[in-house]
Amino acid sequence: MSKKNQDKLLIFALGGVGEIGKNMYVVQYANDIVVIDSGLKFPEEDMLGIDIVIPDIGYLTENRDKVRGILLTHGHEDHIGGLPYVLKHLNVPVYGTKLTLGLVEAKLKEAGLLGETKRILINADSELQLGTIRATFFKTNHSIPDSVGICLETPEGNVVHTGDFKFDHTPVNEQYADLQRMAGIGAKGVLALLSDSTNAERSGFTPSERTVGAELEEMFRKAKQRVVIATFASNIHRIQQIIDACEATRRKLTVVGRSMVNVVTIASELGYLHIPDGMLIEPDEINKLAGDRVAILSTGSQGEPMSALTRMARSSHRKVDILPGDTVIIAATPIPGNERYVGRTVDELFRIGANVIYGPGSVTGVHVSGHGSQEELKLMLNLMRPKYFIPIHGEYRMLRVHGMLAEAVGVEKENIFILDNGDTVEVQGGVARKGSKVQSGNILIDGLGVGDVGNIVLRDRKLLSQDGILVVVVTLSKQDGSILSGPDIISRGFVYVRESEGLLEEANRIVSNTLTKLMNDKVNEWASLKTNVKDALGRFLYEQTRRRPMILPIIMEV
Amino acid sequence: MSKKNQDKLLIFALGGVGEIGKNMYVVQYANDIVVIDSGLKFPEEDMLGIDIVIPDIGYLTENRDKVRGILLTHGHEDHIGGLPYVLKHLNVPVYGTKLTLGLVEAKLKEAGLLGETKRILINADSELQLGTIRATFFKTNHSIPDSVGICLETPEGNVVHTGDFKFDHTPVNEQYADLQRMAGIGAKGVLALLSDSTNAERSGFTPSERTVGAELEEMFRKAKQRVVIATFASNIHRIQQIIDACEATRRKLTVVGRSMVNVVTIASELGYLHIPDGMLIEPDEINKLAGDRVAILSTGSQGEPMSALTRMARSSHRKVDILPGDTVIIAATPIPGNERYVGRTVDELFRIGANVIYGPGSVTGVHVSGHGSQEELKLMLNLMRPKYFIPIHGEYRMLRVHGMLAEAVGVEKENIFILDNGDTVEVQGGVARKGSKVQSGNILIDGLGVGDVGNIVLRDRKLLSQDGILVVVVTLSKQDGSILSGPDIISRGFVYVRESEGLLEEANRIVSNTLTKLMNDKVNEWASLKTNVKDALGRFLYEQTRRRPMILPIIMEV
Repeated sequence: MSKKNQDKLLIFALGGVGEIGKNMYVVQYANDIVVIDSGLKFPEEDMLGIDIVIPDIGYLTENRDKVRGILLTHGHEDHIGGLPYVLKHLNVPVYGTKLTLGLVEAKLKEAGLLGETKRILINADSELQLGTIRATFFKTNHSIPDSVGICLETPEGNVVHTGDFKFDHTPVNEQYADLQRMAGIGAKGVLALLSDSTNAERSGFTPSERTVGAELEEMFRKAKQRVVIATFASNIHRIQQIIDACEATRRKLTVVGRSMVNVVTIASELGYLHIPDGMLIEPDEINKLAGDRVAILSTGSQGEPMSALTRMARSSHRKVDILPGDTVIIAATPIPGNERYVGRTVDELFRIGANVIYGPGSVTGVHVSGHGSQEELKLMLNLMRPKYFIPIHGEYRMLRVHGMLAEAVGVEKENIFILDNGDTVEVQGGVARKGSKVQSGNILIDGLGVGDVGNIVLRDRKLLSQDGILVVVVTLSKQDGSILSGPDIISRGFVYVRESEGLLEEANRIVSNTLTKLMNDKVNEWASLKTNVKDALGRFLYEQTRRRPMILPIIMEV
Repeated sequence: MSKKNQDKLLIFALGGVGEIGKNMYVVQYANDIVVIDSGLKFPEEDMLGIDIVIPDIGYLTENRDKVRGILLTHGHEDHIGGLPYVLKHLNVPVYGTKLTLGLVEAKLKEAGLLGETKRILINADSELQLGTIRATFFKTNHSIPDSVGICLETPEGNVVHTGDFKFDHTPVNEQYADLQRMAGIGAKGVLALLSDSTNAERSGFTPSERTVGAELEEMFRKAKQRVVIATFASNIHRIQQIIDACEATRRKLTVVGRSMVNVVTIASELGYLHIPDGMLIEPDEINKLAGDRVAILSTGSQGEPMSALTRMARSSHRKVDILPGDTVIIAATPIPGNERYVGRTVDELFRIGANVIYGPGSVTGVHVSGHGSQEELKLMLNLMRPKYFIPIHGEYRMLRVHGMLAEAVGVEKENIFILDNGDTVEVQGGVARKGSKVQSGNILIDGLGVGDVGNIVLRDRKLLSQDGILVVVVTLSKQDGSILSGPDIISRGFVYVRESEGLLEEANRIVSNTLTKLMNDKVNEWASLKTNVKDALGRFLYEQTRRRPMILPIIMEV
């Protein structure tokens, strides 16, 4: 990025386009870069062994002197989860509202980065001057309190980033969206709107979180014994409504699952959860109370194999057993890919004899989304009346559908930009066009390794997972190339060895014959030996089993 | 099974309980065994490298003299797909309706079993005497024509197996369900009803297949260019409606995808598809016609990576390209677990510039289920008025919910049996109770191997897929145990070797040191050497990387 860019506005994503998660958007004017959010995503099914995925921040580290800070819209993992990795390589100030910073601080503490990170508390009324860019905020509704959208005033015009949002006209805990401020921003003029596309495929309005509260209270009333309820740990509105349902039905509440305990602790310390005195009890106290005086709030709404709910369902939780007749409510919708896990957990709960209230089929689920549906997306578009529109946060099809909605409310078709990560929109003299691409991509994190697992390693893991591996070892004489020991074949993940002795003996014979023949032909370069062994053995095994295990020939020399 | 059983009726599943797929139910009276269906299921996500799963038929092969035959309810893979494997071990007659046998025969031909298998054509009016058991049939509605339910008249009473069903009052091609015969069976008295639970979680009625036809025709009319439509190859009713939509909109039709071509060929030869003369064209003829005169029927409605639709979406299909402005209709709902595949295919189609009509979110999907919802399940229960009820075909929670429906329509709670595969219901003197368990389970098929991949192999594949493998080879002297060559470390799927040289060098040093120390301590049993190397290396790698690759120490001796 040379001087030519100094009077341009650049807008792009390092993550968050064409995917759910790993959100990170960048707005740059001349020498000032503002980063919005720093999320992670969970690995796709072909990223074997990978723990999490973060965006490639090469562009930011190369321009580290220009980065004025990271502004956070809210405290969900796909918006803050990448911070511990990003801040290690890019120590810049982090701006967030009270709850968001509270959650970030817990995360940084765990990573040992709390001391060295500059954290700046903002609220919806804050105004920041970040070089030539001025940032203001507006309250939004989302499935976590203290969510904000961001307006970046630049010399080229105002760029609005909605964060994640819905319009909830009856929000829990009076967390109203600031329609007046949004309309005010729209009245002053919006150059470009970046808006959440997660639910762009859903028609209508997303129901209010409060509808869930009413259902929950009804279920708590009907339950004759204990209520076990699992939901997303971060959905503090819902947790408040669960507390309210406990109060209305005179139940004590205990909390199980590490992330649930963490969030409840942080949110109640910061005043985002209002828990009546004496309601919270320890898990080991529940057995002293009558069943209809007890509720248990748990993680595991996605059926995660190690979560508290799954362990309770398998009767392997250290402290809490679910009893026949208990009511278990799964107050969440399975994230695509998790349906089978949730299904299995529900199966186990039914086997125990619990009454299970869950989502699949059209049995009433107890959940509403935190993201706005089509009518709300149109409302945001009409509040902002942007000249340019950039749909964000979503798979490609969602961005496309969101683009169609923008067209429907009057944005010019050629003013709608559907970008891939790294694609830029350049604005100069009030005119936007697609600019050149910046570095972007996935950084895979496996254990302590950041980026050391790439395509070759993943391809090998995939191969190994399908048909296993055969290692062929042989020791040759340095002097005359004759076989001193072996060939030995060791397999893992291929066949059950005890029942396949004949096959492996035959395989051994084929390797021996291949080697002997090569030696008679005076072939003795290792590369040829290995290739020939691999080919002969691979062919034989495929004929016999229709499998293609990885074959690893190793030659030792003495 | 000794003489004690000779005057008992036994009912059990070898597959189909607590799972979707792999359906196989067994009814036995004294020395007569009747098997209903012989399905396969696709592997669960932890069955790495497995191609398909069939039921353990040990009980049937042990009692092979008693098995009178396999009755097939319809031609779906989860009801007939296991036949090529089962018939190899159990050569018994197979009974099916015309279309069902047509599909079975194509399958047996491929497996080279057609000549040696006795196939007996039945229709809904057939009556079979299978030893002491008499079988009659009744027409049902399902997403494939020629589906039947089965009534087995035994000395203990009538056992009814519904097969898969819905009630479609406006079926395609006049394939009416035979309500009169069902009611007649109910009037005569039903001892036990085994009924399809697939949609037991869905309230209301499943809409008629015909509603899809109306939508399709509308979409075909609106499409300005070509229509590409993907659906389940076996859904012949839907294919007929696609043909009808082509006729109504004067489009020629071409068929792509191996299974789609197969089914269309078989079904039209047998008279289950009515294709106007001249409508079918070859894929390479479509470019000669105007876009609005062409439709393309394709496999790939589940986004399967190798399917025709996915290849067209990636512009890598040999014969057909999708062009900007073409309309692509996905006339199917993603089976749980396939959502991401379908999503990616839709993304690719949008990128090409196609108009995509698909299911997720609440954008109109073009699909109805072939399985009855709760009101239809209650209707079946009330038509049959059984004394005993055994919900079949479904995950445990679906069976439980179906059981609750049966209770709601008046079946005694203690007369409802929710079984696992292998659990038996024994009936004697008109009284049913849970009997002893018979052998049952999953047989995993990987390539040509049937049952040779078990838990150990799968556990190794899982390990290998997560963190890869390190092979450590060393050649020792037979005489004094000294190291003659190595240790060498070769890794696959662990780290990218070129960027991790330091780590692997250090690993090598640790192995050398461990071996040297052991030799100085006069430890030279191979088992100890291997264990010590594994432990030391494993500890080091975990500390450095937080990964636990499989470590395979190999000692050669010269």
